[in-house]
Amino acid sequence: MTMTLTGSCTDASVGDTGPVIPEAAAATMRGLDTASEDALRHSGRQYLAIGDLTTENSGHLGPVTIAYESWGTLNAAKDNAVLVEHALTGDAHVVGPRGPGQPSPGWWEGLIGPNAPLDTERFFVISTNVLGGCMGSTGPSSLAEDGKPYGSRFPRLTIRDQVAAEIAAVDALGIDTFAAVIGGSMGGMRALEWTVTAPERVRRSVIIASTAAASADQIAWAAPQIAAIRMDPDFRGGDYYGHATPTAGLSVARQIAHTTYRTAAELTSRFGRDAQPGEDPARGGRYAVESYLEYHGRKLVQRFDPNSYLVLTEAMNSHDVGRGRGGVEKALRQVTADVTVASVDSDRLYLPSESDRIAAGVARGRPQTLIHSEYGHDGFLVEADQVAALIRAALAR
Amino acid sequence: MTMTLTGSCTDASVGDTGPVIPEAAAATMRGLDTASEDALRHSGRQYLAIGDLTTENSGHLGPVTIAYESWGTLNAAKDNAVLVEHALTGDAHVVGPRGPGQPSPGWWEGLIGPNAPLDTERFFVISTNVLGGCMGSTGPSSLAEDGKPYGSRFPRLTIRDQVAAEIAAVDALGIDTFAAVIGGSMGGMRALEWTVTAPERVRRSVIIASTAAASADQIAWAAPQIAAIRMDPDFRGGDYYGHATPTAGLSVARQIAHTTYRTAAELTSRFGRDAQPGEDPARGGRYAVESYLEYHGRKLVQRFDPNSYLVLTEAMNSHDVGRGRGGVEKALRQVTADVTVASVDSDRLYLPSESDRIAAGVARGRPQTLIHSEYGHDGFLVEADQVAALIRAALAR
Repeated sequence: MTMTLTGSCTDASVGDTGPVIPEAAAATMRGLDTASEDALRHSGRQYLAIGDLTTENSGHLGPVTIAYESWGTLNAAKDNAVLVEHALTGDAHVVGPRGPGQPSPGWWEGLIGPNAPLDTERFFVISTNVLGGCMGSTGPSSLAEDGKPYGSRFPRLTIRDQVAAEIAAVDALGIDTFAAVIGGSMGGMRALEWTVTAPERVRRSVIIASTAAASADQIAWAAPQIAAIRMDPDFRGGDYYGHATPTAGLSVARQIAHTTYRTAAELTSRFGRDAQPGEDPARGGRYAVESYLEYHGRKLVQRFDPNSYLVLTEAMNSHDVGRGRGGVEKALRQVTADVTVASVDSDRLYLPSESDRIAAGVARGRPQTLIHSEYGHDGFLVEADQVAALIRAALAR
Repeated sequence: MTMTLTGSCTDASVGDTGPVIPEAAAATMRGLDTASEDALRHSGRQYLAIGDLTTENSGHLGPVTIAYESWGTLNAAKDNAVLVEHALTGDAHVVGPRGPGQPSPGWWEGLIGPNAPLDTERFFVISTNVLGGCMGSTGPSSLAEDGKPYGSRFPRLTIRDQVAAEIAAVDALGIDTFAAVIGGSMGGMRALEWTVTAPERVRRSVIIASTAAASADQIAWAAPQIAAIRMDPDFRGGDYYGHATPTAGLSVARQIAHTTYRTAAELTSRFGRDAQPGEDPARGGRYAVESYLEYHGRKLVQRFDPNSYLVLTEAMNSHDVGRGRGGVEKALRQVTADVTVASVDSDRLYLPSESDRIAAGVARGRPQTLIHSEYGHDGFLVEADQVAALIRAALAR
């Protein structure tokens, strides 16, 4: 079987969605340290063809590819799989170094490995790149059936569409049930949607710094991000592949988002009113906090496709686990999994009260775990020890 | 004396900075209800020429005009004047209806009038349009000495520059001391700067929902606003007068700002996940909260000059009452005025802790007043009854 490598973040500017390569070769495409890779039994990035997909809103995609990475070994009973769901700008590379085709290192380092919370001696850990993304799975930069990038033709997705694609992907891998589905932020949305959509396939779920339904405030913060990308003079209505990439708008979006991910107290203690060294704000220079935000904007545009950012942001806006199910509370009551809910006490984007709603609503719920952090929403990534402890506890139940 | 009407917000798109008209005529330029105007002894918009101005950072402006409105009558002792300082997108029109050249109604209705908190039977109330603005005072859309709009040549301003211009303006009116200087948000920055810069001229000050120095968080929220305006394809480096106005970037900026001015709880209770009536977010339509933010963006771009928004935002970033004075606390200890400090309990942009710092720091301080509101920062405008009560109390001391 041959696979089309689709969904390119890094090559979005040239419309290059990658060469056609045999699936077997994909596993070795990244140059990783052999010894540690042996211990982790890390697959590298692999690709699954899941066929055509009709979206919740009657959009059409086909044929669809889902990229994934895995660590550890699926046991004979096929009951030791754990699914890790990444956040907005994450990908399937949960742990591990940068490498060719992988411009960012693992986003949850330490989570997976021998004796790690997701112990590769015990679990087969898989992470899929989200549908609509740009790190291997089908997204707006992928080639449509006419051989041209989707661009503006890419359909609007919901979190539920993304989970439907993941269900098809794990079906292809022969995984019937998961010991746990784990995610934070947008990853938590998918983890919760998995838990409600396929209750018979999820024994535990761990939902961190997320929500049962995108709030008015979250949609409000997204609005100027979406508008900034669309107003970029290089955006061309979304059909910019083969032309300059609309990086300025994505950088603005990232600056807004990044500020929502942190806290006033942290920014004050870290930057205060300091000028960026060597610059004078009184004469056109930048404050240190401005330089910091620009850095984060610049870093993202080097690795992320603006169209994917739009598609995923709109998918997050669509998130409502109660849609078509009689509302959030009724949907949550149908959950059969053992659910661990956590939030960050200083999170100003995904409020602890939104996690409370999940914890209180699921049938086998228990009080949420409050992660203590000064970092706000990003605490779900920064406070690795607390996250590790709650995942260990969830898996010990 | 003839005055050049300068600083145009509404005509920014055509570079029209207004006709040259006699000062006497300016007072009657707005079509107001005569009876109520009589009772208020409202001046309408007037203009003062204050000559050239060298900014704190050695920029040059000249000659400078400051627009103002007034209500009531200056008494013989000239000791009954009150200065009201407007916020970022406000102007000198504190109360009163729309009219020609005045596209927005009063922003603090009910504050000024017979028996109002600022009782026109007792006080001579004056409000100046801020330097750098676009409602009559010299700003980037004003004509420079070469007869062309300043545009990108307009110098970077500080809050201190704006207060220096206001001091020159009230000198021209013969006002030596103020019974009170009152302002909220950016207006509170100017009120505080007045209080520290000219302690012998300020008997009372009322500083609401403001700060002694712009915080890292406030600068962070401003960063993508500034970037969005600058990336607008119509911005032309700030020299867009005579061409299309860069409204898209300003609209994005306003959407960010407006969200910081409100609260998650209010947006949730008001909009939740509702679709805008007649639209379907699943098929490219908007959520109600998105429509709401776009409305606020659209409303602002119809009346405000993007360059003024930049200049004033950067002036707010510069705000540090302790600059060159041995720090905030030392500067505050020099205050001789009776200072009333208030903040909004739900404000997520100007935190109550920042008002606490002012209240605790001034020599004759007392605990701040917490305005209770679900509206966040905008509570300083919305909660008129609470604001009225604290201004009455301040003036009764």
